[in-house]
Amino acid sequence: MIIMRTDATTEQIEHVVQRVENQGLHAHLSQGEERTVIGVVGDGRPIPPEHFQLLPGVDRILPISRPYKLASREFIQENSQFALDGVSIGGSGIVVIAGPCSVESRSQLLETALAVREAGGHALRGGAFKPRTSPYSFQGLGEAGLELLAEARELTGLPVVSEVMSPDQLPMMVPYVDVLQIGARNMQNFALLHAAGASQHPVLLKRGMSATVEELLMAGEYILSHGNRRVILCERGIRTYETATRNTTDINAIPVLKALTHLPVVLDPSHSTGYWQYVEAIARAGIAAGADGIIVEVHPHPEDALSDGGQSLKPERFAELVLQVKAIAEAIGRSLAPSHAGSPLPTAASGFSPSGGDL
Amino acid sequence: MIIMRTDATTEQIEHVVQRVENQGLHAHLSQGEERTVIGVVGDGRPIPPEHFQLLPGVDRILPISRPYKLASREFIQENSQFALDGVSIGGSGIVVIAGPCSVESRSQLLETALAVREAGGHALRGGAFKPRTSPYSFQGLGEAGLELLAEARELTGLPVVSEVMSPDQLPMMVPYVDVLQIGARNMQNFALLHAAGASQHPVLLKRGMSATVEELLMAGEYILSHGNRRVILCERGIRTYETATRNTTDINAIPVLKALTHLPVVLDPSHSTGYWQYVEAIARAGIAAGADGIIVEVHPHPEDALSDGGQSLKPERFAELVLQVKAIAEAIGRSLAPSHAGSPLPTAASGFSPSGGDL
Amino acid sequence: MIIMRTDATTEQIEHVVQRVENQGLHAHLSQGEERTVIGVVGDGRPIPPEHFQLLPGVDRILPISRPYKLASREFIQENSQFALDGVSIGGSGIVVIAGPCSVESRSQLLETALAVREAGGHALRGGAFKPRTSPYSFQGLGEAGLELLAEARELTGLPVVSEVMSPDQLPMMVPYVDVLQIGARNMQNFALLHAAGASQHPVLLKRGMSATVEELLMAGEYILSHGNRRVILCERGIRTYETATRNTTDINAIPVLKALTHLPVVLDPSHSTGYWQYVEAIARAGIAAGADGIIVEVHPHPEDALSDGGQSLKPERFAELVLQVKAIAEAIGRSLAPSHAGSPLPTAASGFSPSGGDL
Amino acid sequence: MIIMRTDATTEQIEHVVQRVENQGLHAHLSQGEERTVIGVVGDGRPIPPEHFQLLPGVDRILPISRPYKLASREFIQENSQFALDGVSIGGSGIVVIAGPCSVESRSQLLETALAVREAGGHALRGGAFKPRTSPYSFQGLGEAGLELLAEARELTGLPVVSEVMSPDQLPMMVPYVDVLQIGARNMQNFALLHAAGASQHPVLLKRGMSATVEELLMAGEYILSHGNRRVILCERGIRTYETATRNTTDINAIPVLKALTHLPVVLDPSHSTGYWQYVEAIARAGIAAGADGIIVEVHPHPEDALSDGGQSLKPERFAELVLQVKAIAEAIGRSLAPSHAGSPLPTAASGFSPSGGDL
Repeated sequence: MIIMRTDATTEQIEHVVQRVENQGLHAHLSQGEERTVIGVVGDGRPIPPEHFQLLPGVDRILPISRPYKLASREFIQENSQFALDGVSIGGSGIVVIAGPCSVESRSQLLETALAVREAGGHALRGGAFKPRTSPYSFQGLGEAGLELLAEARELTGLPVVSEVMSPDQLPMMVPYVDVLQIGARNMQNFALLHAAGASQHPVLLKRGMSATVEELLMAGEYILSHGNRRVILCERGIRTYETATRNTTDINAIPVLKALTHLPVVLDPSHSTGYWQYVEAIARAGIAAGADGIIVEVHPHPEDALSDGGQSLKPERFAELVLQVKAIAEAIGRSLAPSHAGSPLPTAASGFSPSGGDL
Repeated sequence: MIIMRTDATTEQIEHVVQRVENQGLHAHLSQGEERTVIGVVGDGRPIPPEHFQLLPGVDRILPISRPYKLASREFIQENSQFALDGVSIGGSGIVVIAGPCSVESRSQLLETALAVREAGGHALRGGAFKPRTSPYSFQGLGEAGLELLAEARELTGLPVVSEVMSPDQLPMMVPYVDVLQIGARNMQNFALLHAAGASQHPVLLKRGMSATVEELLMAGEYILSHGNRRVILCERGIRTYETATRNTTDINAIPVLKALTHLPVVLDPSHSTGYWQYVEAIARAGIAAGADGIIVEVHPHPEDALSDGGQSLKPERFAELVLQVKAIAEAIGRSLAPSHAGSPLPTAASGFSPSGGDL
Repeated sequence: MIIMRTDATTEQIEHVVQRVENQGLHAHLSQGEERTVIGVVGDGRPIPPEHFQLLPGVDRILPISRPYKLASREFIQENSQFALDGVSIGGSGIVVIAGPCSVESRSQLLETALAVREAGGHALRGGAFKPRTSPYSFQGLGEAGLELLAEARELTGLPVVSEVMSPDQLPMMVPYVDVLQIGARNMQNFALLHAAGASQHPVLLKRGMSATVEELLMAGEYILSHGNRRVILCERGIRTYETATRNTTDINAIPVLKALTHLPVVLDPSHSTGYWQYVEAIARAGIAAGADGIIVEVHPHPEDALSDGGQSLKPERFAELVLQVKAIAEAIGRSLAPSHAGSPLPTAASGFSPSGGDL
Repeated sequence: MIIMRTDATTEQIEHVVQRVENQGLHAHLSQGEERTVIGVVGDGRPIPPEHFQLLPGVDRILPISRPYKLASREFIQENSQFALDGVSIGGSGIVVIAGPCSVESRSQLLETALAVREAGGHALRGGAFKPRTSPYSFQGLGEAGLELLAEARELTGLPVVSEVMSPDQLPMMVPYVDVLQIGARNMQNFALLHAAGASQHPVLLKRGMSATVEELLMAGEYILSHGNRRVILCERGIRTYETATRNTTDINAIPVLKALTHLPVVLDPSHSTGYWQYVEAIARAGIAAGADGIIVEVHPHPEDALSDGGQSLKPERFAELVLQVKAIAEAIGRSLAPSHAGSPLPTAASGFSPSGGDL
């Protein structure tokens, strides 16, 4: 939609129309008393507004169509639903992903993994490569951390979610992790989005700290455009002027995303609040608002955590949280996805005792 | 807490200490390898940081105590609970306040009021004086609107909430309304806050569009400082860069406020989203996060509304919303406050038929 | 411009068209391959979008015309220029308004006023009524402060700018002050805007802390709609996530406002930064960007100031600032407006000695 | 600085003190009437707050020292100044970097480069790899673009600035470009920051779209920590609620950065406004506020540009801009850095005619 200036001349209008038609598009004129508006109609592909906005007499361009396609609910009406190593996400069952911010040691990770499983969690999160604001902070255990995650998976049967920070880490990570997490700071790291798309591995894509919902969908579109359909979108709080919490949970984004896209949507109440005291309330809110799951930080000894201790739940509180999530899920006609809680551990894992030796 | 510069001299430090003590306060020195920090201890009254921040050698001032007192949970540990013409707010019962953005006509208001009552709502909202961004928009019916609100109260038994825009409107409004609403644009209209405090009437105080949680509490403190304890705080969305919704619901503010203050907290999902499509999801989220109630826009014919039609629910949808709120309330161990739904109308009101004549 | 949904039916489109025409407007259809867009053309008056956005089949409404008229440069092409008691604003001469945040005492005000005059400042600012976040902070001297301002005006010949906080203060203030300041917190206090418009007194209107440029223009429109043409717009920083400064100076707003409106535009570098250290740099930037003036806080003893000491310049620094503003003005082909600097004081004032007795 | 809760017990205080001392740090107690504050003093290395914030009885942690060191002006008092292939940045001479958003063709680039040189520009910018929100937009010419940049450098003698998007592009780019640009979206791509640091090549680091000034300095610290001292910081606008411009130029960041760091600081008025109409005003403002240079988009035919045409200046306007920058520089006692304008082209380049054949 091209809005002409109130003082645009007939020649200018004709020039714009000509240019539209030169590009194989159709122009529809609408002449008001104040100004002329030219509708540009194409064949379904997005039309870059920059082709017209500088022509003489043009005031503004207003885009009408959405700039993403594969991610949109207009393209796929039904909710996308897919399995993460046995756990299905995107259906009516709510999925709980939990674990420490960083993998710190064998005992820390395995103890947490067992607690997550026992409480009814469905997948294990844990960072081996950590994006840190300061070069002087703990940067993660690297591949040793990935090995521990694989061991935890074997021990508990829980699929593993871990963050990938650059395209060259991908080949190493794929064998170890079930879901590649792309962090908020990398939401528009396009090289990484392309690589994650090409990997055909499930991806949990976090919203950038000041990304719009539309930009999050565009980032998802990068991954989808490689034919990789297993993309989970994650709201993790946005940056605003408010400092009472670490970020501002954009709870509106949950129903907005569910309306605009068929992809599963989860909420990270740990990062979106930054304080363990508020995690339960916001996790409940996320499920009540329609999220398909949550991803939450759990640490057996938050006061000793090397990162994000202040927003981590202790295992007991996490168990309580799962019960609350279940109650809210049922109040809105959904349920907690089936979990391994209560069932015996896979035999291979029986040798581990969390009070045993450490890394 | 006064942080001295790394190059502050002994004389500068002594000068600051002297100034602290001249004001009847105590100074505690803490000498680091890099710099000296001076703790300032008073008698409980707030100490204005500006008295020290410009002294030679001072780097920064870090306030330690909170700047509000009467509103704080440290001052009053128990939840404040009080009645609005029969309905109790601040206890375990969730309160639903609903009605049109603006009072437009007798039939519009009474029809809505009956629908709110029938669905189980507890109070009626409706604006007689409207703050509008444009001088060319509908500005409200004024006192005629207040008379209609009083009639609706008589008809339904629902207490009435309506916005006051300036101190001189207060004497006229008090007889008509049970709760004075102070809107987001007036949250720091201090003349109005003083007048509302002095009125001793219950006040519903909306958070300013870019106010911090602390500023909301300070605005509440203005009212409380007049001895008026019946203050309800309302989260109604904040302004951020995101444009997918009208505002960004700061859902974090719900548990944060419940932690910091004893005052009742409600959520306005209509303004905080701006689209009726998202109101139900966000209303559920608010209750799940711990709000004591919601205030929501309902209109019998949103497409004809003179203001905010796009975010108003139709009565049928509102009835469905009340059921959802009830389900969430029960999932977290609370309940919907008792309502008049199903009980006969007060006799005085029996003559009204919404299909009858209009204003 | 009404954007229909991609699945809108022919009946829905016809229904919208009919409704447009029922309101005496014209509808222009533009049928794309994906969807239909309906242009709505009126007679120049703004068309409220809410009349159409809820009709069946409607996706979105995109407004084309600007919502303000009297303030727009399309309505008045030439810069508005008017005198403030002898000093002309809005022309090529840059105007410097300066003084203390609050009027605190006779000696403080008169000493500052003389320093402002001597340095080449054109008008005196000073608050008698102070909007303060905390009810426990200094709230201004009230009418006693206004009397001191009038005395300072008599002493120096400088016109006086002071903040009005509510409509009922207006009659008292008008005799004392030459320009009524409406503060950021009251930019959408519509009762106050109406009263200021009706007063026919010059108004300096500060942008709200999170107001858009368009909302500032709409607030100005309220005043202009009363026939009061002497409105000065003031950028004073907006609220963002950045905490290194008190506010974020929206320097872009200067050329944007100069493009959209004919009204004079000034910058307040004291509030927009919050630190005296940055005031000079930002004042220079404002003039370089096209502002018609600055309003800046000056205090003879900032470390004793009862409010905003941290952002106030000492008189010596202010004198240096005026020289810098002059240099920048000349670099862009403008000049400092003529001032009283160097000319003898009005005779009536000759009795004052700033070292004399205080209030 | 550890702030204890008002109800912290003596045991809790002692426990915190013990923990502080167990880490080889010193604890200084300051007992107020309301609460106890514990100052933690170390040996100059940053102390991670997470070690203490979860201990029982702790209310909050307030960091006193800055989290960056190599970038700070406390560490290096003098302005860092270094040469980019002949042009010195960080001294009193203002540097103008200009060129197209994307390298699109040989004629487009060489024509622009000649115009930049002729107008008095000091370096050429141009993207070969483009970060684009949409996977369907033009993504840059890649290495072919780099070759054209090298040709333009040979033709004009101007050093070249171009964006690197991932660590694996670095080895290929270093021979072609004089300054590696790290874009806003990659400001916290830590793998890229490490690689750029290790390259020992000059880096122009753009502030992230919602990064704080402190985070920008921390990102710079990543590069500096590899011993690479040639880092230029670039303000390019931040994301706020205001939509009248593409971003909000944080002009305050210029004097704030100049106060906090010794590194050179430049402003990008093209991205920070998004409209060519405002570029000149904001470029002038940046220099007036103390920036060491600007980086600005120039395109011979903006209406045909494949990206960012709306914010690009035509060569004539750019020439005018350089004159304005020079005037402002002189008004604040600086000057435009010496340029090649007017001197003959290097002989090797004499064969090019911009009206000749294209790529």
